[in-house]
Amino acid sequence: MPLFGRKKTEDAPVRPAWDPLPLPPPARPDGLRSLEDHRDYLLSCVQELPPFGQQLLDAVDLALCEEIVSPISLPGFDNTAMDGYAVRAQDVAAATPEAPIRLPVVGEVAAGQAAPHKLSPGTAMKIMTGAPIPVGADAIVAYESTDRGAADVEIYVPSEVGQHIRRTGEDVAAGQRVFRDGDQLDPRSIGLLAAIGRDKVLVRPRPRVVVVATGSELVEPGRELPSEFQIYDSNSYLLAAAARAAGAQVYRVGMVSDDPDRVRELINDQLIRADLILTTGGVSQGDYDVVKAVMPELGATEFVQVAMQPGKPQGFGLIGGERIPMIMLPGNPVSAFVSFEAFARPVIRKLMGVTPHTRAPVRARATHAMGSTMSRRQLARGIVTHDDDGNRLVSLAGGHGSHLIGNLARANALVVLPEETDLVAAGEQVEVWLLSEGL
Amino acid sequence: MPLFGRKKTEDAPVRPAWDPLPLPPPARPDGLRSLEDHRDYLLSCVQELPPFGQQLLDAVDLALCEEIVSPISLPGFDNTAMDGYAVRAQDVAAATPEAPIRLPVVGEVAAGQAAPHKLSPGTAMKIMTGAPIPVGADAIVAYESTDRGAADVEIYVPSEVGQHIRRTGEDVAAGQRVFRDGDQLDPRSIGLLAAIGRDKVLVRPRPRVVVVATGSELVEPGRELPSEFQIYDSNSYLLAAAARAAGAQVYRVGMVSDDPDRVRELINDQLIRADLILTTGGVSQGDYDVVKAVMPELGATEFVQVAMQPGKPQGFGLIGGERIPMIMLPGNPVSAFVSFEAFARPVIRKLMGVTPHTRAPVRARATHAMGSTMSRRQLARGIVTHDDDGNRLVSLAGGHGSHLIGNLARANALVVLPEETDLVAAGEQVEVWLLSEGL
Repeated sequence: MPLFGRKKTEDAPVRPAWDPLPLPPPARPDGLRSLEDHRDYLLSCVQELPPFGQQLLDAVDLALCEEIVSPISLPGFDNTAMDGYAVRAQDVAAATPEAPIRLPVVGEVAAGQAAPHKLSPGTAMKIMTGAPIPVGADAIVAYESTDRGAADVEIYVPSEVGQHIRRTGEDVAAGQRVFRDGDQLDPRSIGLLAAIGRDKVLVRPRPRVVVVATGSELVEPGRELPSEFQIYDSNSYLLAAAARAAGAQVYRVGMVSDDPDRVRELINDQLIRADLILTTGGVSQGDYDVVKAVMPELGATEFVQVAMQPGKPQGFGLIGGERIPMIMLPGNPVSAFVSFEAFARPVIRKLMGVTPHTRAPVRARATHAMGSTMSRRQLARGIVTHDDDGNRLVSLAGGHGSHLIGNLARANALVVLPEETDLVAAGEQVEVWLLSEGL
Repeated sequence: MPLFGRKKTEDAPVRPAWDPLPLPPPARPDGLRSLEDHRDYLLSCVQELPPFGQQLLDAVDLALCEEIVSPISLPGFDNTAMDGYAVRAQDVAAATPEAPIRLPVVGEVAAGQAAPHKLSPGTAMKIMTGAPIPVGADAIVAYESTDRGAADVEIYVPSEVGQHIRRTGEDVAAGQRVFRDGDQLDPRSIGLLAAIGRDKVLVRPRPRVVVVATGSELVEPGRELPSEFQIYDSNSYLLAAAARAAGAQVYRVGMVSDDPDRVRELINDQLIRADLILTTGGVSQGDYDVVKAVMPELGATEFVQVAMQPGKPQGFGLIGGERIPMIMLPGNPVSAFVSFEAFARPVIRKLMGVTPHTRAPVRARATHAMGSTMSRRQLARGIVTHDDDGNRLVSLAGGHGSHLIGNLARANALVVLPEETDLVAAGEQVEVWLLSEGL
């Protein structure tokens, strides 16, 4: 489309001498780069974000940047696992329901408190779960094995030494390492960190990811389409949601027209708050491929053909003086999503310091024959189900077309067909990347 | 411990006549309730939260409360899948690399725009990916099959009618239902909703879950332990993190002492912002079991023994005039977490309107013998790994003690041993609930 912006090409400022990108991997004989080579190259170009201190509850899913050594033992002191009576085991050794042992109750210990005094032989002390074992006691008789007496208690069963006693440090010893640098925290980790007294931890933050879709034909959802040949911007929503699901803090900037000035201005504005910029569109062979045209002015970039389908045209850059990573994805929604999974999600996970960077592939049995293109990695949209024995089956969610976002929404997996395959027979095992939990 | 608060018992306000809880299920002959009976009872006592309109990007993971019918077709018009030239297939039928067909280029169509005019026979029109097919054209020749000419173009291969043309509605037809009421939205759903022009959807909100730990022995993490017999509050962190991971919006209130007045006041204060209240501690047989003592004043409650280990003492209530559900979990951290998984997580998911409410159990092979208690469902902490063939193995993460939060943090699964089992032999298949993704 015609460009109405001021033309800055003639009097643009002298282009700074950007440090070049790291040396990319060599191309295959056919001039393409393999998916793994491109992914590993991108991963080699980005570093984990620097750590920062975070409140414990906000650290779930984040990666620790410190080794955690417990300063205390868990339990911190010998304590009782039951509500009952602290006794000396030898005093109740002869107890039976028919001939109970009766002991005077000489005090009481609640959780959080010290026993009022030492337990003398031939006495019992009432004790609540979690309360410290009185000096002199070596067993706990649970309420259920007594008459729950107040002044005296009748005890109906013998107790072994140590019965119902939780020993100091039997769970965690003081000085024990409980987490390694790099461990990703889950709710149970958060519980343990609180138990050893931590309210803050040093973790890598959520990467701030700016998402931009380019294309003059794009219209913001919720508005009327101004003309019958425009379309709604789905890419920026799709990628923003996917980046958030991958753990990022997302700024969805939405879409920008194909005007080079507007793209340049927008990217320059966003650099300050981005740890990663994702764009879609404008990286192919077309006359209006604005991202490909503009971004080399703003940083060190490369545009490359990757041996995959969809997702062949890919761009990458380290933009501006801060060398902010930018992944320039193709504009078709399915190509954009597949490329996100192949390249952007691993990069987001590397920035977060969580491993593995890639989804662990699993195997599933093809329910029907699947065609593929030789010498391209096919990433088809699949629907994974299970047979009666719990084994995974996979079928394709419609055609290969990279515009089929309806099919993409029906899919729950990507079916990864290798380069050297043009046909997978029904019943063969194929590799799949699961996109939903519980599959 | 002694209670220093004002005693209100004598002159408490007249207890309102709370509507009773729905009829609970009958107990088993041993007086206990089965895990499933208790879970299903709790689920029957809560309703899905009422729907509200949400911005699209904030609706990820939430359940739709409307059926979504696409108002438009996808694609919305016939358009080109490639950058190239729009032609009549019959005009290029004879094209070969040796004898290319040369056609005059009579115009250009960019994405988002209408073609400038009808395509006349014997001409070509330059066209960019996504642009509408000009009237009169019936095939697209990709750039790669041409000399990319501007005034004239040489075409080297024939094209079939329809080649590289995406047809109106081939992905989604106008009027087609694309989502059902109750569907849980994932990033790919968000992309499709944007593509059909939706920027807001009607969904069930994230439940507001208030988490309170009770116990005078508890100390806030990050502070010094004031005495050697106090412990850090780990439960409220553990449950807050778990509830958030389950999809809730969490208010961690932290811990409150065993003073009935303070518990009463705190719960009354929290009711206004809670869709669910989770408490831990104070529901057992001890003398200071304050939750059990106080909550019947504030709503309809029941305290029950469930045939599970850990997690036997359980409380539930519908509190205050608004009948806010409250799940009163036991106070040992492992008991609290296991009970959360068994009862609170399904309730949170029901409030959200997402299904299934429970974790889908999977099978794993025991790597060693596992003892269990007859007539109790054992929920042991397990570590799931995989053998070389990808089959799941499970071992226990240490002992059964319900205070072993260090072991809990090492576990990635719960091993569910049935009531009728006292020993699982090494090599037997057992049921596990997976607590981490990708297992």
